[in-house]
Amino acid sequence: MDPALGWAARDASGVLSPFSFSRRPGGEDDVTIKILYCGICHTDLHIIKNDWGNAAYPVVPGHEIVGIVTGVGSNVDKFKVGEKVGVGYMVDSCLSCDSCEQDYENYCDKVVNTSNGIFSDGTKTYGGFSDAIVVKERFVVHIPESLPLDKTAPLLCAGVTVYSPMKYFGLNESGKHLGVVGLGGLGHLAVKFGKAFGMKVTVISGSPSKEKEAIEHLGADSFLVSRNPEQMQAARSTMDGIINTVSAFHPILPLISLLKVHGKMIMLGGPNKPLELYSYSLIQGGKMVAGSCIGGMKDTQEMIEFAGKHNITAEAEVVGMEYVNTAMDRLAAGDVRYRFVIDVANTLVAT
Amino acid sequence: MDPALGWAARDASGVLSPFSFSRRPGGEDDVTIKILYCGICHTDLHIIKNDWGNAAYPVVPGHEIVGIVTGVGSNVDKFKVGEKVGVGYMVDSCLSCDSCEQDYENYCDKVVNTSNGIFSDGTKTYGGFSDAIVVKERFVVHIPESLPLDKTAPLLCAGVTVYSPMKYFGLNESGKHLGVVGLGGLGHLAVKFGKAFGMKVTVISGSPSKEKEAIEHLGADSFLVSRNPEQMQAARSTMDGIINTVSAFHPILPLISLLKVHGKMIMLGGPNKPLELYSYSLIQGGKMVAGSCIGGMKDTQEMIEFAGKHNITAEAEVVGMEYVNTAMDRLAAGDVRYRFVIDVANTLVAT
Repeated sequence: MDPALGWAARDASGVLSPFSFSRRPGGEDDVTIKILYCGICHTDLHIIKNDWGNAAYPVVPGHEIVGIVTGVGSNVDKFKVGEKVGVGYMVDSCLSCDSCEQDYENYCDKVVNTSNGIFSDGTKTYGGFSDAIVVKERFVVHIPESLPLDKTAPLLCAGVTVYSPMKYFGLNESGKHLGVVGLGGLGHLAVKFGKAFGMKVTVISGSPSKEKEAIEHLGADSFLVSRNPEQMQAARSTMDGIINTVSAFHPILPLISLLKVHGKMIMLGGPNKPLELYSYSLIQGGKMVAGSCIGGMKDTQEMIEFAGKHNITAEAEVVGMEYVNTAMDRLAAGDVRYRFVIDVANTLVAT
Repeated sequence: MDPALGWAARDASGVLSPFSFSRRPGGEDDVTIKILYCGICHTDLHIIKNDWGNAAYPVVPGHEIVGIVTGVGSNVDKFKVGEKVGVGYMVDSCLSCDSCEQDYENYCDKVVNTSNGIFSDGTKTYGGFSDAIVVKERFVVHIPESLPLDKTAPLLCAGVTVYSPMKYFGLNESGKHLGVVGLGGLGHLAVKFGKAFGMKVTVISGSPSKEKEAIEHLGADSFLVSRNPEQMQAARSTMDGIINTVSAFHPILPLISLLKVHGKMIMLGGPNKPLELYSYSLIQGGKMVAGSCIGGMKDTQEMIEFAGKHNITAEAEVVGMEYVNTAMDRLAAGDVRYRFVIDVANTLVAT
């Protein structure tokens, strides 16, 4: 085993501190990666605090990883030492089920999460808040030369989480009208991808204060305050699709009414409390509500190439590893625009 | 105006009795039809009882109409006198909106219902519990010679209501696994269409007593009792799609768990109370819940030709008009397998 250094949470306080562990040596199918940057996703926060009851401490978080290849196994033919690569939410799956065969490894029953996961041999996975990682070739993607590595890191999870359903559900066609509910890590990228697809993009938010940012900075075409009934009424039946990133309980009936006939709302956030679904709101216009969870590796590679072509990166605040506990507190308070990224290689120290 | 005879409800008692009224003479785009049979749909019951608060008495119900062409206008080129034809839930729409242009007149904002509707000139529509009807050519379909007219009548609404979403959502492919929730007027036709498409069909019902009927009589492949957790557990992640016809409140989480990755549940019934939607149940497998309302005229014609080819008709109890109030009571009590059809031509009398 190869010695590795990371920052880990040891208990449900979620406080992260230096942690020495070991990783498997790179096998014949593996790519070994020196980690340069790693984004902080809300999922990391949930896991280190054991919000979902599944934390297997010590937990090294991090699944929005970019770095440089330092070694490749004998069967690896897509990657070379020195190349820029990324790793996202998963590092393995069964590779033989219907989902894997259709390039939706994200829906494989045996998917292995990059952080706080368990490999098929029973060993634990440790995430990207660490110096290096060893990953099966299929779960590594190339990063286009044109993209700055730090602000590209969040694309590996947040980026593909919005891109994959936009593609799957046909919400990637020029001229269509996309609504984006919630302007956070996911939402701000949905706006950017929507505009790059040539769509009209409307941000729907409970916070009127986000209008300027949405339109002037992110390039949205229009903005609706979800609590303003006149605005919502005027926008009825105008949207082909909605990317809904809100993970708190909220009324979905007013959002469904924004959809055109056959419109689609894609849920990316999962409130603990059930949402109220009035069937007639779907029946009257042949509408649908769907869910989506990250995306497969083929979509991840395609997404990042598209991002390279259209200069899409996350809006991110790059911080040192010593700041990570503060960053987690600020993330919990919603105080980030729109993602933290850790400058791992320059700031990871053992003490 | 031409004199017409029907049976109408005069108030929210819903009691039907003979009613003399008039219909417009057939215009250049119209087909005039002598009505032979008319199905009774649950919607008729809701409307005559004013359950939805929109009854404009007197109401002549009926929108599952089959009959014989007795006259055609000068612009009509698809129909000839003497041909067997059908009319469903609608008799007009704007013909110029996106929905109309895409052959989804059913989702046109200006759709005119066959019964209890209002034409664009402000006159009322009277439905198929009557001797004749005058309908714009676009809203009339041919009935294949091979189909018996009485048991074909319910296809005009119930048939297309299941067929159209099965087609739209790709739940019409041989080898796929279809779940059908609720075995009533809609559900029993969903089983028949599913089998004709070459699908595996599983009926899901709260009533174990329906198993024999579902499998032996309707040809379903298997049967699940929705209240049996072992059966439901064993069937998890096995279905490509579900046609859900239940219009009472019911838990949908166990139904969503029956769906495979990317599976689809189509809601056809609209409970007044909101259903409980746990977003994570959709997110985990990229699943969707959609709604659908009848179908467009192109789908209606296609459906009935498919039915002709595969000998699909409704299971129906054919009754005389004098029995209609009893039939409505029995329908309200769920005492029908699976549709009443009125033998209009032979039993409609003025007193």
